[in-house]
Amino acid sequence: MKLIDLYAKLKKDISYIEKELERCIDNDNALLREASLHLLKAGGKRIRPVYVLLGAKFGTYDLERIKHVAVSLELIHMASLVHDDVIDDATTRRGQLTVKSKWDNKIAMYTGDYIFAKALSVVTQLPNPVIHQIMSKAIVEMSIGEMEQIRFFFNSDQTVRDYLLRIKRKTALLIAISCQLGAIASGASEEISRCLYTYGYNVGMAFQVRDDILDLCGTEKELGKPPGSDIRQGNISIPVIFALQDIELKSGLLKEIARIQQFDGQTDISDFLRSIRNSSGIKRAEDLASRYIDKAITALQPLPNIQAKKDFIGIAHFIGNRSY
Amino acid sequence: MKLIDLYAKLKKDISYIEKELERCIDNDNALLREASLHLLKAGGKRIRPVYVLLGAKFGTYDLERIKHVAVSLELIHMASLVHDDVIDDATTRRGQLTVKSKWDNKIAMYTGDYIFAKALSVVTQLPNPVIHQIMSKAIVEMSIGEMEQIRFFFNSDQTVRDYLLRIKRKTALLIAISCQLGAIASGASEEISRCLYTYGYNVGMAFQVRDDILDLCGTEKELGKPPGSDIRQGNISIPVIFALQDIELKSGLLKEIARIQQFDGQTDISDFLRSIRNSSGIKRAEDLASRYIDKAITALQPLPNIQAKKDFIGIAHFIGNRSY
Repeated sequence: MKLIDLYAKLKKDISYIEKELERCIDNDNALLREASLHLLKAGGKRIRPVYVLLGAKFGTYDLERIKHVAVSLELIHMASLVHDDVIDDATTRRGQLTVKSKWDNKIAMYTGDYIFAKALSVVTQLPNPVIHQIMSKAIVEMSIGEMEQIRFFFNSDQTVRDYLLRIKRKTALLIAISCQLGAIASGASEEISRCLYTYGYNVGMAFQVRDDILDLCGTEKELGKPPGSDIRQGNISIPVIFALQDIELKSGLLKEIARIQQFDGQTDISDFLRSIRNSSGIKRAEDLASRYIDKAITALQPLPNIQAKKDFIGIAHFIGNRSY
Repeated sequence: MKLIDLYAKLKKDISYIEKELERCIDNDNALLREASLHLLKAGGKRIRPVYVLLGAKFGTYDLERIKHVAVSLELIHMASLVHDDVIDDATTRRGQLTVKSKWDNKIAMYTGDYIFAKALSVVTQLPNPVIHQIMSKAIVEMSIGEMEQIRFFFNSDQTVRDYLLRIKRKTALLIAISCQLGAIASGASEEISRCLYTYGYNVGMAFQVRDDILDLCGTEKELGKPPGSDIRQGNISIPVIFALQDIELKSGLLKEIARIQQFDGQTDISDFLRSIRNSSGIKRAEDLASRYIDKAITALQPLPNIQAKKDFIGIAHFIGNRSY
């Protein structure tokens, strides 16, 4: 399956979610409206709403109910991006100026706060406290993850476990609950929603691992930005952690990382990139991503054989093979 | 009634809430734990929990239930303060270093995000979606209010209505829902919770108006900071708006405000303060605060004559007369 076919199939519902997103960030403060709209129009694949819609196919599919979950999860994702851009000092995202760069850090902070609050007010319109609990707990974990990311900047001592917990909080959890809450909001059984959570968690982990591989191995053309932006910001990702386990590479890599940190990321990193690309770290990270994909697909086994199950499997394969 | 007597009476329950506050910001990121604890230990009157506890006396008072509301509202207040300090570039608050000054703006942003998320995860433990809805809507309004405050910095054209809407969002709403949610969480009738909302709203408005008067008329000793910090930051408060309506004062005040803005608040403001203090703006603002206090007390009339009602009246009188 191509991802584009899946989007084509869901087009009507995704367009409706898109309109709802626009409607719900409308407010009477011009600056807040403009900054929120700028963020929304900067795009994104709306993959979290897609997970919600597919998850909801396992229950009674009612767009008027599940839209609250889909819109809310996308807003939470957007809010976290605005605040991330402040930390990463990012000028552009997806080729568009970030809120912090078009306006400033303070506007970005309050825009994030507003979108975040709005996400909660949208989801609480569904009178199901379990949904509210799952969502707010995930946001707590996400916010701890943000701080953990800062803590581990340029930290070469971090373990594989540190990395995995961080990407769980940063990426996988929100995808896991997107699948799960789609099912819960449509009244699917607890077993189904649990399977979908496990699927989403594993797909999310695979997605982030592959994203981190791409940042090291992709070309500027493929990535839309120069490779190695993670290490420039201090993010030590899994291929690097694996490469550091190679005794022959370790001391050279440590020196490179220290140098990049010393120059605050503003230095030539081609030696570092070459070293990582030639290491076994890439292959080991790819294997790790594949194992997550396998686990994601296995998690779907108990589910009824409806089209949405095939679509979920298709997404997992797509993420397993993604090269951009 | 003295406020100190009320606190003495509620001491056991407030201490319990205090412990719960500490317990719930405990997490495994050392920096986040330290920053949150620093914020918590910096103190505050915990007036929102007091409103919750008193509101709950009108239903079935069960501390194990209402603690979720009390803790959550105090956390939301705390989270908004950390983010405020980033905007106001504040070095100290209540004589303690702010998070942004002890660490930095980025740490303050994420600490606020975390505490905010935690507030929601605490309140969603109460399986009452109405409470979640009321709370999330209030937070949306508060976040719009933050941006409105930026919008009106040094804006001399703002109306009384602009000001009132702003302090409603900034202060009064959270106090209103503290009273209201205490009642709802204890199962009091809808009429009671509505009366308490109205009481809280009016008390909150009076509180902020008096706070804004004090900032202009208090001494450094009374305030714990030099008077006029509002205008230095660009906040044009109600006594100033009233004074600007005086044709004889207007052009002089406009010049003063423009000068203070030009120096980014870092200039002698004694002429400005003298002008405001000698204007009718102070008296008119005091009258406005008194009218809010009257409305607050009137809102309590339909309530049963229990001790909590007397305590609410006592708080209103205290705020009406507060001189520090």
